[in-house]
Amino acid sequence: MKVAIVSSNNLKNTKLGPSTAGDLATKSILELLSHTTIDKSSIDGLIVTSNSQEIYLSNIVSEMCGLKPKFSTRVENLCNSGTSGILMAFSLIQARICKAVIVVGTEKQNSIGNKLNWDISRGIFDMPIHWAAMYASNHFQKFGTKPEDLALISYKNHLYANKNPNAIFYNKRFSFSQILDSDMVAEPLRKLDCCYPCDGASSLLLVSEDLAYKFESPIWIRSISQNSQGASFASISHSLDYIASTKIAAKEAFEMASMSPKDIDIAEVHDAFTILELLAYEDIGFVKKGCGRNFILDEIININTRGGLLGCGHPIGATGISQTNEIVLQLQGLAKGRQISNLKSGLVHNMAAAGTSTTIILLQN
Amino acid sequence: MKVAIVSSNNLKNTKLGPSTAGDLATKSILELLSHTTIDKSSIDGLIVTSNSQEIYLSNIVSEMCGLKPKFSTRVENLCNSGTSGILMAFSLIQARICKAVIVVGTEKQNSIGNKLNWDISRGIFDMPIHWAAMYASNHFQKFGTKPEDLALISYKNHLYANKNPNAIFYNKRFSFSQILDSDMVAEPLRKLDCCYPCDGASSLLLVSEDLAYKFESPIWIRSISQNSQGASFASISHSLDYIASTKIAAKEAFEMASMSPKDIDIAEVHDAFTILELLAYEDIGFVKKGCGRNFILDEIININTRGGLLGCGHPIGATGISQTNEIVLQLQGLAKGRQISNLKSGLVHNMAAAGTSTTIILLQN
Repeated sequence: MKVAIVSSNNLKNTKLGPSTAGDLATKSILELLSHTTIDKSSIDGLIVTSNSQEIYLSNIVSEMCGLKPKFSTRVENLCNSGTSGILMAFSLIQARICKAVIVVGTEKQNSIGNKLNWDISRGIFDMPIHWAAMYASNHFQKFGTKPEDLALISYKNHLYANKNPNAIFYNKRFSFSQILDSDMVAEPLRKLDCCYPCDGASSLLLVSEDLAYKFESPIWIRSISQNSQGASFASISHSLDYIASTKIAAKEAFEMASMSPKDIDIAEVHDAFTILELLAYEDIGFVKKGCGRNFILDEIININTRGGLLGCGHPIGATGISQTNEIVLQLQGLAKGRQISNLKSGLVHNMAAAGTSTTIILLQN
Repeated sequence: MKVAIVSSNNLKNTKLGPSTAGDLATKSILELLSHTTIDKSSIDGLIVTSNSQEIYLSNIVSEMCGLKPKFSTRVENLCNSGTSGILMAFSLIQARICKAVIVVGTEKQNSIGNKLNWDISRGIFDMPIHWAAMYASNHFQKFGTKPEDLALISYKNHLYANKNPNAIFYNKRFSFSQILDSDMVAEPLRKLDCCYPCDGASSLLLVSEDLAYKFESPIWIRSISQNSQGASFASISHSLDYIASTKIAAKEAFEMASMSPKDIDIAEVHDAFTILELLAYEDIGFVKKGCGRNFILDEIININTRGGLLGCGHPIGATGISQTNEIVLQLQGLAKGRQISNLKSGLVHNMAAAGTSTTIILLQN
């Protein structure tokens, strides 16, 4: 049973506003539905992905949207919640339990998911930047990567964000030296090496093969794979050279699809910090280990064309959906001012704190 | 692809204790694994079902148990969380994404899930008993049901709980008149018409067909169905005669399995309040609408043999798993002091507040 994504929506990311996570999810779904011909009664699955403290969100959002899905639940898996929801929707359709599933990710800027409260191996360093800084220092020392390489990633993604009206940094330019000289937060990472937690919501409509052909430009899920390593930095960082969950999930996703990194024309990678985008190049297999710094200049693959987390902001539970949304739009040829031409295959890389878990999705038009 | 439940565990339900929801889930999984021969590395899925405010529980529990599953996430769907997790595990296996999935439900007595904070149609009546009382009043008026009929359900379930060492009311007897004369809470429901929110955790191991035959007494999932109606009492109570989500989910589960209520030998129904057990008899189809009060005396089917939520307590996110655990044990012939003989088919009925959603699972040995 093939599964396709046939419609998507992304709200504009904002600073903390008055809407609840449920309100944002509802708005995104209603906008998505207004652009399709599918009847509400045909939506038989709803998955809400969020780290919000709001309880029974999936039932509330169902009701607010006028949906009565067969299956409905909330999924929480930290920053990797969005694609975890997509994987579940994919499974529900493959298992023939549902035929048309909406996955909506939603988050508030003050989400508890922004702090890593559990991991005692971090001591008092409970902000994600501390482990990101360790990965960066290691890469600098071992592979000769420089602050300028990281700044270039931030520069590129902010440039792309300027073309994306939904990005929190839309129409906000940063020069290369502004990035390179921004405040140091955790050596060697600076303020503009970091993404910006924000309010946001994004949604996707996944359908079974027979329904997919009724829509224009269905985008097919060629494979989807996840890997979980644990929840503490001590247990998942046997080496600071790579993110194990990304390497494993990517390898499996490519095997499942009988594809290789060379087949990918466009990708969204999880750049919560600049160093993570660089590691993703290597761990996914776009370049050899240690060579990430050269990859960005080659520009063979289009990476984070919506602006990434660095340029768009990071509404935690929604991010994986927003990333997938961008690849879907690009493969459909609907990315407007930032559309890349001649695209066939795209990749989504969504992960949670320090590589706790990673999901990889391969998509084709 | 057939899916079987091959192992299960249930901790003793308790009043509020020092363990976190993560601790309880970990304990239940480690106990489950200690009774099977499966290797930890073969567990490729972990779903944690809980209304807890603890974030990224599935990753924490993975690590505490020494698991590195491919797929891992937390699921929250109020009182219907447990069976929502089972439905997802079933889908993951059917979709051939996973082969061996542990679903663990866990909850603390002070879970935020005990209060219905969202539903403005309830006014200040945000405790579930208020809507349960409306269903009860309606049944009394329309079908001649009496306080004694509800008390009999409580009496029966407490009697069963006396045989279940994991029940919070194990070894605690109530006479029929003690139940009938217990404090009035919301007319016509009394204290002993209500379940007792508590700490608890329960877990199940679901596997694909090829793995199932390596275990003794696999219990097969014949069908599993869910229906969601909304999140506010106003939107789901067009009639107080029945719970729509239960009727729809049960009808579909029987159709999927080509079975009928007559084929069921044993059932766990969601008796958060006595009236809900009576409605479940009718909505599932064991008796005609309005005749629930007679059904309990006929005793053709064994209902809530572990003591139900009334006798065992109700650790919200774990309850659906505990209910399924009981049917699995009974069908395996491992229910010890409360074992019923000659069982072939069992039913699990798990629902959320006021019939927001219901899941029905049909199991066979």
